Amino acid sequence: MRIGALSARTGVPVATIKYYVREGLLAGGERTGHNQVSYGEAHVRRLRLVRSMVETGGLPIATVREVLTEIEDPRRDLDSALGVASRALSSHRVPDDAPDDRHVETALAIVRRRGWERVPHEHGYIRALADVVARLEFFGISDLAELEDRYARAAEQVAEADIRLLMRRADRDEILETMVVGTVLGDALFEILRRLAQVEVSGREFKGPEAKPSERDER
Amino acid sequence: MRIGALSARTGVPVATIKYYVREGLLAGGERTGHNQVSYGEAHVRRLRLVRSMVETGGLPIATVREVLTEIEDPRRDLDSALGVASRALSSHRVPDDAPDDRHVETALAIVRRRGWERVPHEHGYIRALADVVARLEFFGISDLAELEDRYARAAEQVAEADIRLLMRRADRDEILETMVVGTVLGDALFEILRRLAQVEVSGREFKGPEAKPSERDER
Repeated sequence: MRIGALSARTGVPVATIKYYVREGLLAGGERTGHNQVSYGEAHVRRLRLVRSMVETGGLPIATVREVLTEIEDPRRDLDSALGVASRALSSHRVPDDAPDDRHVETALAIVRRRGWERVPHEHGYIRALADVVARLEFFGISDLAELEDRYARAAEQVAEADIRLLMRRADRDEILETMVVGTVLGDALFEILRRLAQVEVSGREFKGPEAKPSERDER
Repeated sequence: MRIGALSARTGVPVATIKYYVREGLLAGGERTGHNQVSYGEAHVRRLRLVRSMVETGGLPIATVREVLTEIEDPRRDLDSALGVASRALSSHRVPDDAPDDRHVETALAIVRRRGWERVPHEHGYIRALADVVARLEFFGISDLAELEDRYARAAEQVAEADIRLLMRRADRDEILETMVVGTVLGDALFEILRRLAQVEVSGREFKGPEAKPSERDER
């Protein structure tokens, strides 16, 4: 298809498509004649992948390129490609400066209470967790441990579904694409479902069982 | 304390503090003499709140100002302040253009299966959910309904903890602050715990029970 059709199919403006090609996020079309370039289904799929990272994930172009470069490097074994890509997708969560030991200890305690023995203690995500714990603590969120354990339990249930999804995929490209899509869209999916559930639960708690649908968030 | 001490206490550069004051995100200090302005604990707390929204939540200054204006408007009743602030905190998730009916129907089906009767069908979060569902569908994520229900169940558990936290707070300001902090930091908390759980679960699934800590994401 021509670039106009590709734009219509994906809802991505032609100028943006050309920009992605220049930035190396999308392969150029196939030259089919004088001034004629043709794009295929692979372009549609890649474009949707890039848009999910940019629009839903809010990731900067540099990060998107980093992820795509990783999952396309044939010299990388799958395991390492998964690791590096997943870290790139999460880099915005890992603080540059080391959190203090007390909060790292709290973070490790959460992991220990869930029995997550396979998480390396020096993992970047532990630093990220310690950073959030420190911020929560400051605001005197009561029963923080109870809250954290509730979140950790829920996160494990979600992660089991995530990994099962990956294990169902057969070839390398599918697995890598599913990981990227699942990471970015999964974050968004949970975030929105959490808010919807908050509307439901607060309606239940504050308005009683007989309540009409809460219009709180409609105002 | 002087602005230098406020900066040291919070780790926020003096120039940034002055910028927040100019932008109306932080009240100016109290003038205690010629060229002397003094800041108190309320400034420390407010500064941490703003930083949580900006650094952890990645929210634009305009959104932060919108949220703070809402929770500080004394004419607003608590319920409505909670609603408007929570919507502002989630505005980046709600797509401008309406998703197509098929995906809205899928979104409503998820809500129905969980028995969330108090969520208005025309809610912005339903549009947001439909948008993510559409993106997931495109990539042919298999057993999408199973995945969505797993996420929804986990989200409800988390939301119950969130609301319980709010209900423990006594006065209006505390409730509103906890809602803002809980929304922004709660998203980050879950996102990180999900990734940690993925490391654990994938280690379990791919490496077997005897495995050493997965170093996947350490590469």
